[in-house]
Amino acid sequence: MAIAMDAEALARFLEEAFPQVAEDYVIEEVSEMALRVRLAVAERHLRPGGTVSGPAMFSLADVAVYLAVLAMVGPKALAVTTNCSIDFMRKPAAGQDLVAEARLLKLGRVLAVGDVMILPADGGAAVARATLTYSLPPER
Amino acid sequence: MAIAMDAEALARFLEEAFPQVAEDYVIEEVSEMALRVRLAVAERHLRPGGTVSGPAMFSLADVAVYLAVLAMVGPKALAVTTNCSIDFMRKPAAGQDLVAEARLLKLGRVLAVGDVMILPADGGAAVARATLTYSLPPER
Amino acid sequence: MAIAMDAEALARFLEEAFPQVAEDYVIEEVSEMALRVRLAVAERHLRPGGTVSGPAMFSLADVAVYLAVLAMVGPKALAVTTNCSIDFMRKPAAGQDLVAEARLLKLGRVLAVGDVMILPADGGAAVARATLTYSLPPER
Amino acid sequence: MAIAMDAEALARFLEEAFPQVAEDYVIEEVSEMALRVRLAVAERHLRPGGTVSGPAMFSLADVAVYLAVLAMVGPKALAVTTNCSIDFMRKPAAGQDLVAEARLLKLGRVLAVGDVMILPADGGAAVARATLTYSLPPER
Repeated sequence: MAIAMDAEALARFLEEAFPQVAEDYVIEEVSEMALRVRLAVAERHLRPGGTVSGPAMFSLADVAVYLAVLAMVGPKALAVTTNCSIDFMRKPAAGQDLVAEARLLKLGRVLAVGDVMILPADGGAAVARATLTYSLPPER
Repeated sequence: MAIAMDAEALARFLEEAFPQVAEDYVIEEVSEMALRVRLAVAERHLRPGGTVSGPAMFSLADVAVYLAVLAMVGPKALAVTTNCSIDFMRKPAAGQDLVAEARLLKLGRVLAVGDVMILPADGGAAVARATLTYSLPPER
Repeated sequence: MAIAMDAEALARFLEEAFPQVAEDYVIEEVSEMALRVRLAVAERHLRPGGTVSGPAMFSLADVAVYLAVLAMVGPKALAVTTNCSIDFMRKPAAGQDLVAEARLLKLGRVLAVGDVMILPADGGAAVARATLTYSLPPER
Repeated sequence: MAIAMDAEALARFLEEAFPQVAEDYVIEEVSEMALRVRLAVAERHLRPGGTVSGPAMFSLADVAVYLAVLAMVGPKALAVTTNCSIDFMRKPAAGQDLVAEARLLKLGRVLAVGDVMILPADGGAAVARATLTYSLPPER
């Protein structure tokens, strides 16, 4: 299955469709059914103590799988998150970016399922994992 | 089981511990093992089209159950979210606040489990539901 | 929204479609978007110690929401479970049946979402809770 | 971290502790923080049409991560499943075994988290995935 959008095309799409959050994310790699994106951690993502907040990790996981879907089906698809199960396993260390490695496990006619590991950008054990389901619009 | 913190005490705690987000939330009601909190929707919670974003709903669910736990165990407890399963069921209408109704299903020695419904403040069907698990520190 | 199948019709359907498990379940009450079903606990549902096994509780949750969907959309719908998030909160006491109280939170064109509480039939705190998503076939 | 129980020791433990289900499972490989187990599919695991039932897949996922925990912490640990999120992605083909590949993502003092892919034994795309959390007893 061919890639419909590469990292550059996805970054452009993000800027146009989600200007509020586009600068948070750096798309590092796009491959078939998989994508890696980095959260450029800023003050607004932190909790007291300098650790990345749960909502910021949720957002990263959501964006990672969303972009992995778009990479395969193209920018017209209006995928909607219907379910997320996320496990927070370790407190992220302060002062470093987080990387999300997403892979699509299913890309069906009406549903896509992907999982994602969230890792410290400088290496080390996963801080969180998530699985997300997207509903794909019928017009595909 | 007695309530350890009322709405006012919880609001004060939120302002001190999480000053970045405290103004987003209005604690409307605290009762035994249950709590209702409103997200005062602002520009930063929206996606294009004026609908509340997934991460903003995740945050609301997380805060609601977290506060319900604190209401029962008091401000010393450093509860940490370990798991969240969230279902996004309907697109929230633009231009209105969201309300989270949380209840604790379990408040054990090391784990607390709560679920939460997210509803439009002006009435109507639930837009999301979530279940969250918190790890409670041993020093309790 | 009218009920398409009552308790008797659902029980008959269960016997025809799932003869292996039909005798395990007693449908106690069917109402709009909600259903209560009892697991008639037998030896095969138990773990050593006499407590109901996790898989038996998973099955009960799955059947409860599945039947709640069928009650609303009728026997032709071939709903397929796509996701389940289940929390096991307390060990069920030995020697008593379990009851599942399911309600549908969403009954859309392609997806249905329901949650369910699993309670001891003789009363007491919930032993488990679950949320399930079903994919509904397009021929509806 | 050393392996505390190998495949043979785990199989013996399963026979003693869970004689009702032990014959269903063949432990194929044990390594650090990972384990592969096969469900020897029999009539009782099937739905009409010959496809493996959801509860049978839930059980397989649960056993796989449970055994992966025991492999690391030894037979004294009485791990209890507290949460499972499972996605059913494809209908398993009739007439073949299923294999679960589990890996532990966290093995903490009080909680263990593992995920698992369920695949057709003869190859092909994953039919389900799951993440499970276990509470570990304090006496460890």
